[in-house]
Amino acid sequence: MRRTVFNEDHEAFRETIRDFIEAEVVPVFPEWEEAGHPPREFYNKLGELGVFGITVPEEYGGAGETSFKYAAVISEECARQGVNFGATTVHVNLVLPYLLAYGTEEQKKRWLPGFVSGDMMTAIAMTEPGTGSDLAGMQTTAKRDGDHYILNGAKTFITGGVLADMCLVVARTSPATPENRRAGLSILCVDTKSEGYSVGRKLEKIGLRTSDTAELSFTDVRVPVENLLGEEGRGFEYLAHNLAEERLAIAVQSYASAAAAVEFAMAYVKDRTVFGKSVASFQNTKFVLAECDTEVEAARSLVDRAMDAHDLGELTPADAAKTKLFCTEVQARVVDKCLQLHGGYGYILEYPIARLYTDARVSRIYGGTSEVLKTIIAKQLGV
Amino acid sequence: MRRTVFNEDHEAFRETIRDFIEAEVVPVFPEWEEAGHPPREFYNKLGELGVFGITVPEEYGGAGETSFKYAAVISEECARQGVNFGATTVHVNLVLPYLLAYGTEEQKKRWLPGFVSGDMMTAIAMTEPGTGSDLAGMQTTAKRDGDHYILNGAKTFITGGVLADMCLVVARTSPATPENRRAGLSILCVDTKSEGYSVGRKLEKIGLRTSDTAELSFTDVRVPVENLLGEEGRGFEYLAHNLAEERLAIAVQSYASAAAAVEFAMAYVKDRTVFGKSVASFQNTKFVLAECDTEVEAARSLVDRAMDAHDLGELTPADAAKTKLFCTEVQARVVDKCLQLHGGYGYILEYPIARLYTDARVSRIYGGTSEVLKTIIAKQLGV
Amino acid sequence: MRRTVFNEDHEAFRETIRDFIEAEVVPVFPEWEEAGHPPREFYNKLGELGVFGITVPEEYGGAGETSFKYAAVISEECARQGVNFGATTVHVNLVLPYLLAYGTEEQKKRWLPGFVSGDMMTAIAMTEPGTGSDLAGMQTTAKRDGDHYILNGAKTFITGGVLADMCLVVARTSPATPENRRAGLSILCVDTKSEGYSVGRKLEKIGLRTSDTAELSFTDVRVPVENLLGEEGRGFEYLAHNLAEERLAIAVQSYASAAAAVEFAMAYVKDRTVFGKSVASFQNTKFVLAECDTEVEAARSLVDRAMDAHDLGELTPADAAKTKLFCTEVQARVVDKCLQLHGGYGYILEYPIARLYTDARVSRIYGGTSEVLKTIIAKQLGV
Amino acid sequence: MRRTVFNEDHEAFRETIRDFIEAEVVPVFPEWEEAGHPPREFYNKLGELGVFGITVPEEYGGAGETSFKYAAVISEECARQGVNFGATTVHVNLVLPYLLAYGTEEQKKRWLPGFVSGDMMTAIAMTEPGTGSDLAGMQTTAKRDGDHYILNGAKTFITGGVLADMCLVVARTSPATPENRRAGLSILCVDTKSEGYSVGRKLEKIGLRTSDTAELSFTDVRVPVENLLGEEGRGFEYLAHNLAEERLAIAVQSYASAAAAVEFAMAYVKDRTVFGKSVASFQNTKFVLAECDTEVEAARSLVDRAMDAHDLGELTPADAAKTKLFCTEVQARVVDKCLQLHGGYGYILEYPIARLYTDARVSRIYGGTSEVLKTIIAKQLGV
Repeated sequence: MRRTVFNEDHEAFRETIRDFIEAEVVPVFPEWEEAGHPPREFYNKLGELGVFGITVPEEYGGAGETSFKYAAVISEECARQGVNFGATTVHVNLVLPYLLAYGTEEQKKRWLPGFVSGDMMTAIAMTEPGTGSDLAGMQTTAKRDGDHYILNGAKTFITGGVLADMCLVVARTSPATPENRRAGLSILCVDTKSEGYSVGRKLEKIGLRTSDTAELSFTDVRVPVENLLGEEGRGFEYLAHNLAEERLAIAVQSYASAAAAVEFAMAYVKDRTVFGKSVASFQNTKFVLAECDTEVEAARSLVDRAMDAHDLGELTPADAAKTKLFCTEVQARVVDKCLQLHGGYGYILEYPIARLYTDARVSRIYGGTSEVLKTIIAKQLGV
Repeated sequence: MRRTVFNEDHEAFRETIRDFIEAEVVPVFPEWEEAGHPPREFYNKLGELGVFGITVPEEYGGAGETSFKYAAVISEECARQGVNFGATTVHVNLVLPYLLAYGTEEQKKRWLPGFVSGDMMTAIAMTEPGTGSDLAGMQTTAKRDGDHYILNGAKTFITGGVLADMCLVVARTSPATPENRRAGLSILCVDTKSEGYSVGRKLEKIGLRTSDTAELSFTDVRVPVENLLGEEGRGFEYLAHNLAEERLAIAVQSYASAAAAVEFAMAYVKDRTVFGKSVASFQNTKFVLAECDTEVEAARSLVDRAMDAHDLGELTPADAAKTKLFCTEVQARVVDKCLQLHGGYGYILEYPIARLYTDARVSRIYGGTSEVLKTIIAKQLGV
Repeated sequence: MRRTVFNEDHEAFRETIRDFIEAEVVPVFPEWEEAGHPPREFYNKLGELGVFGITVPEEYGGAGETSFKYAAVISEECARQGVNFGATTVHVNLVLPYLLAYGTEEQKKRWLPGFVSGDMMTAIAMTEPGTGSDLAGMQTTAKRDGDHYILNGAKTFITGGVLADMCLVVARTSPATPENRRAGLSILCVDTKSEGYSVGRKLEKIGLRTSDTAELSFTDVRVPVENLLGEEGRGFEYLAHNLAEERLAIAVQSYASAAAAVEFAMAYVKDRTVFGKSVASFQNTKFVLAECDTEVEAARSLVDRAMDAHDLGELTPADAAKTKLFCTEVQARVVDKCLQLHGGYGYILEYPIARLYTDARVSRIYGGTSEVLKTIIAKQLGV
Repeated sequence: MRRTVFNEDHEAFRETIRDFIEAEVVPVFPEWEEAGHPPREFYNKLGELGVFGITVPEEYGGAGETSFKYAAVISEECARQGVNFGATTVHVNLVLPYLLAYGTEEQKKRWLPGFVSGDMMTAIAMTEPGTGSDLAGMQTTAKRDGDHYILNGAKTFITGGVLADMCLVVARTSPATPENRRAGLSILCVDTKSEGYSVGRKLEKIGLRTSDTAELSFTDVRVPVENLLGEEGRGFEYLAHNLAEERLAIAVQSYASAAAAVEFAMAYVKDRTVFGKSVASFQNTKFVLAECDTEVEAARSLVDRAMDAHDLGELTPADAAKTKLFCTEVQARVVDKCLQLHGGYGYILEYPIARLYTDARVSRIYGGTSEVLKTIIAKQLGV
């Protein structure tokens, strides 16, 4: 059904992105997969294209847009061509909102131009070995020492952690209080070339092969106090603030992945013959594709409604949770079924459906597992 | 998330319907279930309320609205209170569109006032024993004899067939041609008190207990030629014309049924204690309700988009098929899970969840089985 | 695959039961459904046939068998012909094991001959309005008064409760202790013609229409102390004892129901034509039946293994829970899919698939809901 | 429940295999994954251990066993420790049955000793680019030229194709006849060091990272006629002959993978804490594990029954198809759920659950896709 979420500006942007992907990504994507991430200079190309500055105010070098929908356009176009932009969703969808919301004027001037140009790539370090989604259980500490914090601890699952120039590290600046386990957390913007800042091994993942995921460790890393983001001790609150957008972004990617899977499967079954008949001619093929397309249509309706709500500032945490939960479940089912239609080829990584499959498995986990989301939804339901 | 499909008029209508249901339906609904249909005079009450005339032009006694959304409001309010209006969805959603689209001025004047007031209840007879959804295989014949057709044959699964005053009967007025199995079908509006028109036994169904479903048989029933609807031989084409709206109507009912199931389950689990704890306090309960509410949210988004499209005249057969397929699948899953949360009480018919369950099973069958819908969707996908 | 659980005696018994069902049940089953239970004298016929006495020792009029498999044969043959023996599974599978395990010699002599002949039909009353499966929360009391107990309280969901001559009532004979909520329960065998014993309304259920389910209330019912089963205060322990067999019995019924559904669907799709083709010729039909038959094969393997284990006295509570959980889930999926293959006819109660569908919904609830079973299984897993 | 399929000999063999895996595989398995296959000499170690000769008659250096169950023991023990033996299932489960069934005395003497010792590793090449499971559509040709066949063509998805010393190549020795597309196929045992035999690139797969999967091409490869296996033109028939065992072997692996997944998840959730509570303490965790363990129990029952049937020579193609279909579906569901319980760690390949997940996806595809299996099952059902 006709979508009403995108206006002419979004569609013009879509054209630009589509052309860029065709020219700059598709031909070299297999090399990125081999390497485990895009070449560093690709991020500068994205900067030139304006991808990092869409929602950055003009005074800091951005385009000053406020709509989330441009990010959605990028997700959709990447999925359609079976590629991605490495770890840049973290840079744009996760880190940027914090800088915009909590950065001081001075910090914005200092960081945003490099952020926008791609000269300064960013990551964010929350999860620690052994604590998972439980931020309150965090062990990394940042002790004040004059005009610096002394950072010690370790983080894991840091997307973009290998190539990042600056990393937002969530650390404990004071002990949790008995009445509030979440008190005492702060966000520090850490230069990744600081002494004592060490990037551990790159984690081998089921998928997301172009996204560098690292372990980090900090040994007496000195972070200037002017690199504190927002106020000391309010880190937990800040982190909660952007969860809805983060989850919406994953929902859009998941929906787009499912939609792309249907396209890949359609192309495959029309092209392919078994037992002397086109695969597309089997009733099972038709039915499976009809089921998948129907689920994609529902996910699209939900995602579009959520995007409209988000642009209006109305998207609640529970709404975002439902949108992510639904779209990631649809993605899991649809991508699996579309892979099956490919037969043995679906298991070979050079086929985009195989990459969609391996990438898809993380959707129900990162940005809040399905279990965490259900807890949020149930709370809002009052049970 | 906030819905944008309903305007103030729809919401005012919702208030009216809600009050009416509380006063006129809820207290007596168990009696209707026992009897197998509402009392005949209830249909006149609906007529007085204006329910049958919403989309009938004012010159024939209706309100002259064009939006499908009033019908949706009725479905939603009935589901919310665990009741229905007997077989009237056939009268309004199935029969009326044919009368409006293909009736002559004379026929409209003759029939619509009684249709609107509830004095003339209607049904439509397509399915025959042994042909199912395959209209082209129809055996009932209508042979021209002067200014009458002589109708012979049998029909089954006729919703509203016991109480109907006029029945639209699809019959073969000329043989199918070799090149077109669908040729030669016509729609006759038959007075159910005609000689030779016989209502067979009421079929006992799994659910829909207030909806009278009958077998009909016709033995030399004389139908005046002025009761032919539209042109002779174009019946198949006419029947195809309204399928999108019919399927949208079922989609809305199914969505509304699922939404109501969540409400009933929420009320139950909050009220109920097992092993010394509220049922609502179990993580499984929370998760199940969160899953159900999420699916309902997706169905609502899809149904709303489809209603907007339909009001704009844009809803394609494949879109309607997807909407019905998705909403009826959601209904099946959600109602089943919500029943389970009721434990043994869910199996007892006095609980509304049990009625929702028995009613729900037909959704994936009538108005086009899920299999027929998948065929339509696949065709539109080009496979 | 070839089954190895049944020996020649079981198969000979199967022949007898099959013939009996054909002659005595199939022709009159619709009348039973209308009436809500078989006629009382049918139970005497079952008695004559020996159905109630299979596992009753010979000295009390039974056949002295010890294998559960005869009961399985009855379930399978009933399902195959789309009928049942009313509420007799309670009589044989639930009540009898208590009488055999905990009855005194005097009680066995007093009760078993009538039990075997069908002159004394039995039921068991555990569940109370508001407590569900939580036996420890029971409110019904039995206060000792000389050589009688004075019984007061109410029970619900009592299968066979309308026609029963003797009802095993679980009641509190002393208060729960702080350290043991389950202490103080006893089982009394109550003559249903006792003064103060009142059978409330028959509950209308989604299915199981030939099984009379009642509410009971007790007002100062005097029960002779010689009608206490086993020792006072050990009721909870006794009730736990037979749960494995009860669950195995439901598992067998559920498996048999699924197997029968496949048979009914196979017969239907071979017989039925749509769009000029046999329903059986569609790939979707073939695939759905293959999926269903595969699940039935797995359920059969599991049930057979469980029956062998049970006959050897090895079936643990967790094993029985897994067997019931799996078979009832298979039943739900398979019966639903096989109904769908029937199209509109699947929704009409005269078709056996419709009855299988309505009966099936209780399987995941009674004898321990799926949720209770999962709790048991998880406990055995050590989580 | 207690399994009855394994006798003391099987259990003794299990001990041996278990110790071997712990000592020889677990410590070096990550290196194999990196390399894409075990080192060539590992296969000789397996030969020494006797793994390749279990069912080879003693006169050719084997142990002369006839039971499939030893192979099952290996699958189970590998799965339990999260490893595998590279591509050796092809060597033992696929190739060997052909050599034993169709090899001449001379061929057996020539090949089996090296087969058993691991000096001659084997593979089998059926699938061609573009034909998938449709053997009859095969394009590779073997033209008789004196006492040689001249082999030309290409194959793909050849498991073990990189390291194999001898490859059974299915080729067309005469054209298909109009009445039999399957006629004219033969099996040639080709020395992989022959001139014109070329191993193309190793295919990158979603999982099975220690199993070398290759493309092969043949350009005028000269194969001595004494390397023809069985009779010319009967290849299709031969290939069909062993499908039941091949599918049973995959079923066992899939079951074992699911069982192992439950074990890994159990260990993880007991060890891991979130929000201050053990993951094992959440009701959702308990329920998910209970569901998984129940499905595993059903799969185990089915697989055991199938193994008994196979050892008795009774396993029909449809039975094998059902067993594979069911076990691979269980594997897919169970491994996915158990991965989810691991949270983010489940996505990291160093965790065995992640490898189980990536390996599992091929189970529903190779050895006959689920769709092919359903076709076989439906045929046996008579629809």
